[in-house]
Amino acid sequence: MSEEHRLPAQTYQRIVLAARPRGQVAPENFRLETATLPTIDDLKINEVVIKNHYLSLDPYMRGRMSKAKSYAEPQALDQTMIGATAGQVVASRHADFLPGDYVSGMLGWTEMAIEDGAALRKVDAVILPLSVYLSVLGMPGVTAWYGIHRILQAKAGQTLVVSAAGGAVGSVVGQLAKLIGCRVVGIAGGEQKCAYIVDELGFDSCVDYKKFASEEELTDSLAAATPDGIDLLFENVGGRIFDASLARLNPYAKIALCGMIAGYSANSDNAQALKNSGKLLTMRATLQGFIVTEHMDVWPQALAELTELMVAKKLHYKEMIAQGLAAAPNAFIGLLSGKNLGKQLVRF
Amino acid sequence: MSEEHRLPAQTYQRIVLAARPRGQVAPENFRLETATLPTIDDLKINEVVIKNHYLSLDPYMRGRMSKAKSYAEPQALDQTMIGATAGQVVASRHADFLPGDYVSGMLGWTEMAIEDGAALRKVDAVILPLSVYLSVLGMPGVTAWYGIHRILQAKAGQTLVVSAAGGAVGSVVGQLAKLIGCRVVGIAGGEQKCAYIVDELGFDSCVDYKKFASEEELTDSLAAATPDGIDLLFENVGGRIFDASLARLNPYAKIALCGMIAGYSANSDNAQALKNSGKLLTMRATLQGFIVTEHMDVWPQALAELTELMVAKKLHYKEMIAQGLAAAPNAFIGLLSGKNLGKQLVRF
Repeated sequence: MSEEHRLPAQTYQRIVLAARPRGQVAPENFRLETATLPTIDDLKINEVVIKNHYLSLDPYMRGRMSKAKSYAEPQALDQTMIGATAGQVVASRHADFLPGDYVSGMLGWTEMAIEDGAALRKVDAVILPLSVYLSVLGMPGVTAWYGIHRILQAKAGQTLVVSAAGGAVGSVVGQLAKLIGCRVVGIAGGEQKCAYIVDELGFDSCVDYKKFASEEELTDSLAAATPDGIDLLFENVGGRIFDASLARLNPYAKIALCGMIAGYSANSDNAQALKNSGKLLTMRATLQGFIVTEHMDVWPQALAELTELMVAKKLHYKEMIAQGLAAAPNAFIGLLSGKNLGKQLVRF
Repeated sequence: MSEEHRLPAQTYQRIVLAARPRGQVAPENFRLETATLPTIDDLKINEVVIKNHYLSLDPYMRGRMSKAKSYAEPQALDQTMIGATAGQVVASRHADFLPGDYVSGMLGWTEMAIEDGAALRKVDAVILPLSVYLSVLGMPGVTAWYGIHRILQAKAGQTLVVSAAGGAVGSVVGQLAKLIGCRVVGIAGGEQKCAYIVDELGFDSCVDYKKFASEEELTDSLAAATPDGIDLLFENVGGRIFDASLARLNPYAKIALCGMIAGYSANSDNAQALKNSGKLLTMRATLQGFIVTEHMDVWPQALAELTELMVAKKLHYKEMIAQGLAAAPNAFIGLLSGKNLGKQLVRF
């Protein structure tokens, strides 16, 4: 290790889980800490020091904050919050990474981190902005791709509905389905989101669930937007939003169950209660719950296709950017209540 | 047509749908009528006159009594109630059927009927009793076979749970799974049913849902019966019974959704409300709703395998038999509230 790669002892900030939330997530669940980076001499072989530029905030983090058994181990208390990041190498003992290289990884809610190179993905921040590796060309984009191609197997002429349609996953789902030739209807909360979804993302229609006082009104509005029923459903929300789509299912409908954000912060199970579950039977539906990180084999193909579409400017996206690590908790709380339009990021 | 095949003009009884039920089915929804059989001279080519010996009562009939769109057209008012039957040919203008032949078909709640031979299945009532063609060797048995082999693809060592385990479908589901080498747990209502399911059908365990006042108690009891969780679920009931099983799902659990009898007679959708729907996501479950009459291609193989098991006495079954057509409405109402143990039949 040559002298010029030596780093001075350096402090950085990180956010740890201070307490598990009871119901709604609150700022007190998090704690901002100052940590000190080891000197470069302490780096082990293959380790890389990264300075993060962006942190991705995603709904799955809410699940990790709880103790309840889910698809992954709970986030440990007093440890750096889990999260995807994009940044730059500042020091390296790994042959594939040089200072200045752009990388994405799962480094968490932290300004800096040391990581084994095997867990890092080198990305090209020249052709495309660095932040897209946390949205369209990251987990949200691959999630959309997997649901559309592997679960729903969308075909031209089918009607696809996607909830949380303005979010990082939903916006890609609908655009991929449009490229295939589907009729695409989004469900989202708020006029501004619906305008974005139709005018900028090119969906055929968008149902603003906040406009309706009753479940009947919501169902009626979705019925008007899906005159031929629903063949394919990409579900991100659960609860009454999911119920409205269930009521419109066609025979042999397929459902990709990706998220149930409606219930993540609920104190009772009722927020996720499905009243129209009988439709799964009467419409002989197929439903598949999935977590894209369990399907790493599809990532290379998915990322190649998504990159090609991004370079050709066939996929549009929006980012909401919170400034500085300290802003992360409130940005995350906003994401859980649907305040974001497009991908929610934190920039350091 | 020779003289001896001539029939005298003859009356018979049938039951028609008099009115659609509001909530619970009541005797007034049905009307017993006397009809007159045409003389044999009026038979068209390929038509067969059948005298039914048995009528099958099945939960799907409840769905047909409602006007709501489902997988099949609603039962028409003032027409003979739909239903599977087993009986004997009394006259025939079809080359494949002779008087005396045993047949099963969908002739409805009626003592006699005229049917095109193409819609009849000739059955062997010598090796096995005629009534089994309405249970293990009829729609219920093929339903169980399809769920076990085509949807759940049950394998030795997996834990399978089946609800309405003492019923015509559930009892075959559990026995087929035991033959494959699964650990099999039934859910049923009542001590007598559970004793039958364990002692006579050979299930590993049975949870009596009527014993528990709260959903927690039910879930705890099911947890004790499924120490390794649930890999495969054959769901016949829906509502809180389904919820209890959802709470025990293992990662990648498969669910064959065959019935939701809990909600069939409900005035509100709440009887079918699923509180634990989030488990479908967190456990990355696959759920498939199905109707076995849409999979006619599997019937020959399924019936061949089931017949072989029946002849080898490897499948056990029980029948509850109501006497005479007039007893059908009350027997059906009993079936919907879970009063039957095994297959509910009406004998004429």
